[in-house]
Amino acid sequence: MRHVDVLIIGGGPAGISAAIWCKRLGIDCLLLEEQSQLGGQLFNIFNEIIDYPGMRTKNGIEMQREMVKHFVEMDCLYEVNTKVLFIDERSKTVKVKKQAKKQEICYTYLILATGSSQRKLGVPGEQQMIDRGEVYSASADGERLKGKTVAIIGGGDRAFEGAHLLSSKAREVYLIHRSTRFKAREQYVERVISNPCIKVMTDTEVTAIHGDRHVTSIDLESKNKEYKNLLVDAILIRLGVAPNVELIKGKVATAQNGLIVTDDVHQSSNPFIYAIGDACTTPLFSSISSSTGQGTIVAKHISSLLTEA
Amino acid sequence: MRHVDVLIIGGGPAGISAAIWCKRLGIDCLLLEEQSQLGGQLFNIFNEIIDYPGMRTKNGIEMQREMVKHFVEMDCLYEVNTKVLFIDERSKTVKVKKQAKKQEICYTYLILATGSSQRKLGVPGEQQMIDRGEVYSASADGERLKGKTVAIIGGGDRAFEGAHLLSSKAREVYLIHRSTRFKAREQYVERVISNPCIKVMTDTEVTAIHGDRHVTSIDLESKNKEYKNLLVDAILIRLGVAPNVELIKGKVATAQNGLIVTDDVHQSSNPFIYAIGDACTTPLFSSISSSTGQGTIVAKHISSLLTEA
Repeated sequence: MRHVDVLIIGGGPAGISAAIWCKRLGIDCLLLEEQSQLGGQLFNIFNEIIDYPGMRTKNGIEMQREMVKHFVEMDCLYEVNTKVLFIDERSKTVKVKKQAKKQEICYTYLILATGSSQRKLGVPGEQQMIDRGEVYSASADGERLKGKTVAIIGGGDRAFEGAHLLSSKAREVYLIHRSTRFKAREQYVERVISNPCIKVMTDTEVTAIHGDRHVTSIDLESKNKEYKNLLVDAILIRLGVAPNVELIKGKVATAQNGLIVTDDVHQSSNPFIYAIGDACTTPLFSSISSSTGQGTIVAKHISSLLTEA
Repeated sequence: MRHVDVLIIGGGPAGISAAIWCKRLGIDCLLLEEQSQLGGQLFNIFNEIIDYPGMRTKNGIEMQREMVKHFVEMDCLYEVNTKVLFIDERSKTVKVKKQAKKQEICYTYLILATGSSQRKLGVPGEQQMIDRGEVYSASADGERLKGKTVAIIGGGDRAFEGAHLLSSKAREVYLIHRSTRFKAREQYVERVISNPCIKVMTDTEVTAIHGDRHVTSIDLESKNKEYKNLLVDAILIRLGVAPNVELIKGKVATAQNGLIVTDDVHQSSNPFIYAIGDACTTPLFSSISSSTGQGTIVAKHISSLLTEA
């Protein structure tokens, strides 16, 4: 069975940083990425990145290119298109699948850099919509949504920012939220409420998404049991993110919000398992630079343990 | 009196990152730097930087240039040549001096990004040597030290790495350490001990540095009280680093190693004072990327507090 001193699951900024640092410190390390390319959530950033000190990029793709270039130049070992099926923390073995081929990899230390995913509504028609590619960015898809009727679902900063951005492009914008309380910043909420082009619907849940070849309408249910079908051309689901922790559930301690609990060197409740990036960081504190910083700390800590051994 | 929501002391990577993030989050912020340029310890990195994910640079100066460019493009407010004389944490006021001009600045939150400094021997002749500019880098000054007799003082990684690097350039290399136990990695120690060009002297302390226009010799005292004068042309002091915390001593909790104690959002024992970078990070975990990551976290935390207020 293949053995590595450090196995990293996830090839976003956190995982890339951990791998670069492992290489830098002479640690035998392998990174696994489920997608066909490294970069993780960098692919979802369509605006300019102005907050990674020393390096401004036009968007996430450009940042991804620079990070992957660095990673490849450092000769870091990695496998893409490789899905982790199961973590056996007792035997310190991971079962993975690459295309049809399954294999097991044994680790001394495991670093979970699995990131987070957008939360879903969990209603009929949603997955079909996503599979059809009807996924929009409020900042990048203004032209694509020009003249359309758009529903944005959520009550946080991103929902309100999206509604604001699209209000000048779309024909009509609905902001639909299941409660009357918003998590978004006050100035964001005020800006949207005072905008005559945006209709805010509170205490309202989406119960289904309709449309065969593209979205045509959504079913709504209000708190006082009023039902309504709303004609829309596009939906932006902005319910926030959830950490990708399914693989490790019940195997390390997680907090109520689902995040993996770690100490100041990012060790989890299992001393052989570390977590970095959005799998253990609240969205409030999540950023590319904090993720890469965490990758550094973890590699340095593991290096000190391997040297002692 | 001038008031800012966030006052940052120190313009190294941690402080620069905190300032960029404050700007990004719309926080009124001012950064103070004692030296004539921002960059902090980046000026002491003479080798290639290969461990800041996404951005490789030839040396610290090149990294400094990129970070300062970013900082300036973001329109971050700062003052160089500005020394903080006193922090009054009760009135949340800082007394500063720029050239002859003194002033007071009032803050809501204070971020200490004061970094760390090389430890000194504290012996006669040392400060004069430093003032004469006889400060060397083992990696960058090989040519300058070619054919010379060099003493390296210390027992950690940097001392041993320096001895190894210079052994192929200098005429003679002495590695002098006050104990017989080394903090350096075993492979570093072995490489030096097996190198016939390096003479290792243990249980030996430097008690004075001689030389008028340049170093000519050092006085040594061994544990069993033997005294010796050793002719050398250059000295590299590699005693590790100490956090720059004089300004805040007794005002926030510090650990036995001198580091400011902070929680997971880098808040110190005083809720209005934060610390980031080498002022609160052990040298083992110190890096540019962890420093910038900390700058991000702090700005985000302060932003959440200012928004709530």
